Amino acid sequence: MNSLHFSDSDIVQMESRKRAAFMNSLTGFKSASLIGTIDKNGSTNLSIFSSVTHLGSNPALVGFINRPDSTERHTLENILELGFYTINHIHPGIFSKAHQTAARYPKNVSEFKAVGLTAEFHREFQAPFVLESRIKYGLEYIESHSLKINGTILVIGKVIEAILPDTCLRTDGSIDVESAETMAISGLDGYHVTNQLARLSYAKPETLPTELRD
Amino acid sequence: MNSLHFSDSDIVQMESRKRAAFMNSLTGFKSASLIGTIDKNGSTNLSIFSSVTHLGSNPALVGFINRPDSTERHTLENILELGFYTINHIHPGIFSKAHQTAARYPKNVSEFKAVGLTAEFHREFQAPFVLESRIKYGLEYIESHSLKINGTILVIGKVIEAILPDTCLRTDGSIDVESAETMAISGLDGYHVTNQLARLSYAKPETLPTELRD
Repeated sequence: MNSLHFSDSDIVQMESRKRAAFMNSLTGFKSASLIGTIDKNGSTNLSIFSSVTHLGSNPALVGFINRPDSTERHTLENILELGFYTINHIHPGIFSKAHQTAARYPKNVSEFKAVGLTAEFHREFQAPFVLESRIKYGLEYIESHSLKINGTILVIGKVIEAILPDTCLRTDGSIDVESAETMAISGLDGYHVTNQLARLSYAKPETLPTELRD
Repeated sequence: MNSLHFSDSDIVQMESRKRAAFMNSLTGFKSASLIGTIDKNGSTNLSIFSSVTHLGSNPALVGFINRPDSTERHTLENILELGFYTINHIHPGIFSKAHQTAARYPKNVSEFKAVGLTAEFHREFQAPFVLESRIKYGLEYIESHSLKINGTILVIGKVIEAILPDTCLRTDGSIDVESAETMAISGLDGYHVTNQLARLSYAKPETLPTELRD
């Protein structure tokens, strides 16, 4: 096995679709989520995102990256309009439908209907969850940051509702996302399930980590 | 199987370690990376991060989240001091050492030495790579954003060097990170390898996605 080396000018000179495939893979595995929204006329929207990231636990903050030039704009427009959205994990039973939400449907077409997923409303929460998803959470929009260098927008929300199978919650508070078959994404189109090798104990300078048992 | 429901006040009322475990798991799988830096005196630093996120392909931008209160400060201090850093994928042969870099070592202790990984310098690039890592890339610091609501910092860099096994690069430009045994992280301490279920074709409104063959 040999190593390949790419410089910044090698990356700039790649054909644009190859560069997008390369750069989207370079950061490794990504979360696999569907973001559900609704506009003020009651039209629902659903879109796949692989950039959902934990930002803080108290307050309970989650971010995602919205590209400036994409169909994902419907998601951001709706979030700014009503202030609420849902994030829904993707599992093997729905990943092909989830991928299809990336198609450029017109704004008046609900991706829920187009791909065959079910919008689920909880009490007074103003955004649709994905009924078929197992781990899902509802957020209130907090703030956004436009990144000077490329116009990308970091959208930040606070978790105000979380729903998960009772079999997934461990006694230490963590969620066993693997047991819910939550998937990971690589690149623009790779869908993966996982095998846990280990959970490791809290790292301290004077000892080596040991394997935790659930 | 029953569903558990948590409201925002349920999350606020969790014991703080349980809340951290819960919130860190809620977003699903995360990238598993070691960030390598050096200060102006030549002291190297290495720290594990699970928040590395693709931000754009042209320019080639990658972000990560730096908590305001953490030992990760050494990483950010070094990045601001010299302007360069490396991001190195974690595989099963090094994940236990990678986890141990999270221990609160004093600034004058190099985590490379403390955990038993090797600092590797390439030509004139001013930051150490992890020799044992298979997929790795060097970045130039571009900008950072402080998130008003919790003081967390989004650090953005441009990829100026990328190194990967020649066996991992596909003809479409994507990197087969699974074949390099790149791991995914769940929560604060879960380490996972992956099984690719499928790669799916580019989504278009009028057709359903089909499975891509490598």
